Amino acid sequence: MNEISFAVLGTGGIGRRTLEVSQYRDGLIPVAVCDRGGIAVDHDGLDVGELLDATEGNVASGPDEVDDDQDTVTDGGVSTDAGGVKQTGEGAGVVASEQGRPTETPIDDIIAKSDRIDAVLIALPNLEHDFIPRVADRFAEAGYEGVLIDVLKRSRVIGLLDERAETLEDAGITFVCGAGATPGFLTGAAALAAQSFVEVDEVEIWWGVGLRSGYEDNRGTVREDIAHLDGYDIETARALSDEEIEAIVAEHGGVIEFNDMEHADDVLLERAGVCDVEDVTVGGVLDVRTDEKPTTTTVSVTGTTFDGERGTNTFRLDDDTSMAANVNGPALGYLKTGVRRNRAGEYGVFGPAELMPRF
Amino acid sequence: MNEISFAVLGTGGIGRRTLEVSQYRDGLIPVAVCDRGGIAVDHDGLDVGELLDATEGNVASGPDEVDDDQDTVTDGGVSTDAGGVKQTGEGAGVVASEQGRPTETPIDDIIAKSDRIDAVLIALPNLEHDFIPRVADRFAEAGYEGVLIDVLKRSRVIGLLDERAETLEDAGITFVCGAGATPGFLTGAAALAAQSFVEVDEVEIWWGVGLRSGYEDNRGTVREDIAHLDGYDIETARALSDEEIEAIVAEHGGVIEFNDMEHADDVLLERAGVCDVEDVTVGGVLDVRTDEKPTTTTVSVTGTTFDGERGTNTFRLDDDTSMAANVNGPALGYLKTGVRRNRAGEYGVFGPAELMPRF
Repeated sequence: MNEISFAVLGTGGIGRRTLEVSQYRDGLIPVAVCDRGGIAVDHDGLDVGELLDATEGNVASGPDEVDDDQDTVTDGGVSTDAGGVKQTGEGAGVVASEQGRPTETPIDDIIAKSDRIDAVLIALPNLEHDFIPRVADRFAEAGYEGVLIDVLKRSRVIGLLDERAETLEDAGITFVCGAGATPGFLTGAAALAAQSFVEVDEVEIWWGVGLRSGYEDNRGTVREDIAHLDGYDIETARALSDEEIEAIVAEHGGVIEFNDMEHADDVLLERAGVCDVEDVTVGGVLDVRTDEKPTTTTVSVTGTTFDGERGTNTFRLDDDTSMAANVNGPALGYLKTGVRRNRAGEYGVFGPAELMPRF
Repeated sequence: MNEISFAVLGTGGIGRRTLEVSQYRDGLIPVAVCDRGGIAVDHDGLDVGELLDATEGNVASGPDEVDDDQDTVTDGGVSTDAGGVKQTGEGAGVVASEQGRPTETPIDDIIAKSDRIDAVLIALPNLEHDFIPRVADRFAEAGYEGVLIDVLKRSRVIGLLDERAETLEDAGITFVCGAGATPGFLTGAAALAAQSFVEVDEVEIWWGVGLRSGYEDNRGTVREDIAHLDGYDIETARALSDEEIEAIVAEHGGVIEFNDMEHADDVLLERAGVCDVEDVTVGGVLDVRTDEKPTTTTVSVTGTTFDGERGTNTFRLDDDTSMAANVNGPALGYLKTGVRRNRAGEYGVFGPAELMPRF
């Protein structure tokens, strides 16, 4: 495979670690990065080490983003912040790098350079449900012909992207949605595990997350999960104060179990023809007080074989593989596949379960 | 996805069951089948039920094929015969179906119809190592522009196909090799499981097969596995009499464990960029005296994450999923993917670990 130039929108946890992981993967050249206040572009390849060092603990973001990054992605439950101290104002974020320069229009600036960019990972907080779909619109309107990829997890975002499928197809854009750990990695595993069967009866996706840095640093993003608890939804969770979140976490002894979560796994598996939406269940356990995973992330696919046997194939992630590893590795793998599809002229919206991530 | 018309060369276990399983999958139209003495073609779709009923226990094959189907595929170890009584001569095999007609040139007859066939599953015994590669040559020479797919497992066959990659590419053929259980299904799982890691240290593929019909019916194909035992190779295994094979099986109490098998899993994972050939080990246990699997088919991928942790992700097939289910489901899944690649203009030789099988 030829080299792939890619950009990352956003330098929170996902964005930073994607840049980091890309250095271990063959053929991936990070050429552009932006955050809310700055942009860095080098078509020969950014100096990722310098960029990460300069911005360590210095992520440009406002309080809105810290509190509201609903829908950002996880190995199941929890959004992945950098964990560093967030700063705002001059000198914060990408501009702290010697490769960066300030801008008030970071996304437009990336779009302006996008004719030389094969793929763009959108690692922005999805502030409103249609924020990332609208970013896609802007790329399409500007005539971008490449790959866009996100790591979102909520079903309704996929719907918004699907509404844009024709526009994206006409533009020559290949959009890979939900390409992180879940739905990305785990629906890919489910689609593969389904191959033994002629009828898939049930897909159970069960994740475990132990937060390395405790819940203090991730309180804002624990909202995303609290919205899945009985008695809460996105709106009520969004309205909670930090203290209220802390109280909910304490009520659960720091270990919260989630069941029947609204994750896009279901719609993505249905798209891929594996099973119906209602055959998919997603849940997991979040432990905010230890680094250890409280339960093993497991995909179980139960089905019936052509010869009438019923069985359950399973895919298990080692407890020692971090949420970050399971988000960023697959995201880059799916990005590579997206570029291959794009170069072959396949445009539109793709779910991970329709693709195999390249290594 | 649009409908896919496909042909099956060979009506042994793999061929028959592929036809059977295809009836459960959306969009797959079996339009042509052949064996050594006959051919059946219907571009509107064969009546699979009639064909299978008419040929049940009536597979056209000579003693050579029964004894020599080295390299035919397995869920690990053992080639999958129909298990029926083999017959030869007039009235045997496909011609026993009311859809069949006799021919002395079955493959050429399929080739003559191939401009209306999207994919051809080559489920023939690989009598010599280059038999299936030479079948590919014949399709290429005849101007076929579609998908060829096999379910072979030996590394050296992949090499022979690779030598033809350019010819196949020029012809417009997409060849998917080794698309059965192993290497197909299990290398796909390994490639996916590798996504947590930036460095894959080891891939261990371990299969269990319990032979439903006992080893009597499969004695000829147990040779393939015996060739992997210490003190044997393909040539010496081929020279064994049935009695000698029986004696070896009895010596092992009917349960034979295999280690460091020459399976194409290693070369296919290297092609996919997952790891080096020498990082892959393939082994398993064959129990010829019970239907139960003697061990659980498991793929273990051990690697190091970007954050320096070492872990092992695993993929397990339920013991109740038969070898046949794990060969034929993935074969059809990869066939579908192959057609998609072919329609997008991607030609040449592909390993399963580079593709996700469609459902």
